[in-house]
Amino acid sequence: MPRYKLTVEYEGNRFSGWQRQRKQPSVQQAIEEAITALFQEKTLVEGAGRTDAGVHALGQVAHVDLSPAVPLWRICDGLNHYLRNQGVVILRAEIVPPDFHARFSATGRVYEYRILNRRAPLTLEANQAWHVIPPLDVEKMQAAANHLLGRHDFTSFRATRCQSPSPVKTLDAFDISYVTMPGGTAITAQVASRSFLHNQVRIMMGTLKRVGEGRLAVKDIPSILETRDRRASGPTAPPQGLYLKSIAY
Amino acid sequence: MPRYKLTVEYEGNRFSGWQRQRKQPSVQQAIEEAITALFQEKTLVEGAGRTDAGVHALGQVAHVDLSPAVPLWRICDGLNHYLRNQGVVILRAEIVPPDFHARFSATGRVYEYRILNRRAPLTLEANQAWHVIPPLDVEKMQAAANHLLGRHDFTSFRATRCQSPSPVKTLDAFDISYVTMPGGTAITAQVASRSFLHNQVRIMMGTLKRVGEGRLAVKDIPSILETRDRRASGPTAPPQGLYLKSIAY
Repeated sequence: MPRYKLTVEYEGNRFSGWQRQRKQPSVQQAIEEAITALFQEKTLVEGAGRTDAGVHALGQVAHVDLSPAVPLWRICDGLNHYLRNQGVVILRAEIVPPDFHARFSATGRVYEYRILNRRAPLTLEANQAWHVIPPLDVEKMQAAANHLLGRHDFTSFRATRCQSPSPVKTLDAFDISYVTMPGGTAITAQVASRSFLHNQVRIMMGTLKRVGEGRLAVKDIPSILETRDRRASGPTAPPQGLYLKSIAY
Repeated sequence: MPRYKLTVEYEGNRFSGWQRQRKQPSVQQAIEEAITALFQEKTLVEGAGRTDAGVHALGQVAHVDLSPAVPLWRICDGLNHYLRNQGVVILRAEIVPPDFHARFSATGRVYEYRILNRRAPLTLEANQAWHVIPPLDVEKMQAAANHLLGRHDFTSFRATRCQSPSPVKTLDAFDISYVTMPGGTAITAQVASRSFLHNQVRIMMGTLKRVGEGRLAVKDIPSILETRDRRASGPTAPPQGLYLKSIAY
């Protein structure tokens, strides 16, 4: 049974998240059902990370074992046929060694977070960015982000229900810049790490937003880290601004 | 009765177009109803251009006469309150002289057209770009666009039902470049003119796409113009790639 690596894009607001759930639509279930429809095969699709409801993916990675040997383009086109209009597509299929594991072989993950900073509500981007009204100071947000770079105990920046055995993670990049969206210039953050805690990026962004508004100071960040208390950091930023961008192996 | 200029953004796929219609949702009607709800006043909202169903606007302009003198920010926030979740927002309100007319005072219009050129179907951009699978040669598309610049009889590039008295228009700009969208780098065309014929931008884009694919040659464009026959040009590109970007006065 050859193992295939799938690169997957999806619109998070159409799913209750990556992971299969009993009564709500998940990306995992949508792909598993497309595989069953295409190959008459029941199989498990294992993803690199469990994105939450509303979180988008531009380059989620999954692996799956399939018995038939078919051309790779047929896997993409065939699965996309069964996935049509569901808000999820297979961008790429590759053959990988049998010990490749989408989650455990991953050596790095990149997330992107988008904020549209304007007064008027969003139309085209309503599900694609966080709408923030108070003007944000991007330089201060970058200075705050710099305090989070490197290896830290991120207890203050993880969901209280996070089940990761260790709260220590290493952030390799946290770059804030701009990107053009139809509704205006968005503030965008690229965050890279080997792995993240549950809601870590969204809590970091909710905290940086407070810095950008002036409700927290840049110098508050080190003490928030030291406190190791979720109540010290900002609110969890909403899921629609978050994109799982790529996974490195 | 002071006259107000409104700058309006909307998601075209949620409307049957700008113009009020008997049984389908229009942007004009949505704004008129919001004004009635906010000011208890029945009034006509006149737009600069009648976008078709599915066509977006980032800077549509409309004018309206209102009897109450209210602060401009209250017009925006108040109307946006009644427009919430409908896919249309007022970006800006300004007081203008009583002879200002959104449509007749306009001296220029800029449209943008977006193409996502990739094999996989679109998810996040399904309603925000034209999905074109065959690889497009952008240099050839620009060379073809250059033949359309300036003053021409655009009969070959207008809908057969177009009611404009003259098919002669002057294109001031037709610039093809790239823009980053979540789903990849989009090919984007910026087209400027004092005014356009019905479906002109979409028929020009449908024709340039054929050039990009190699199904038409760059040198075919002048003869298509000369033919003055709608059947000589390409198909009408779909509405979801088109954005009314700005109106100049």
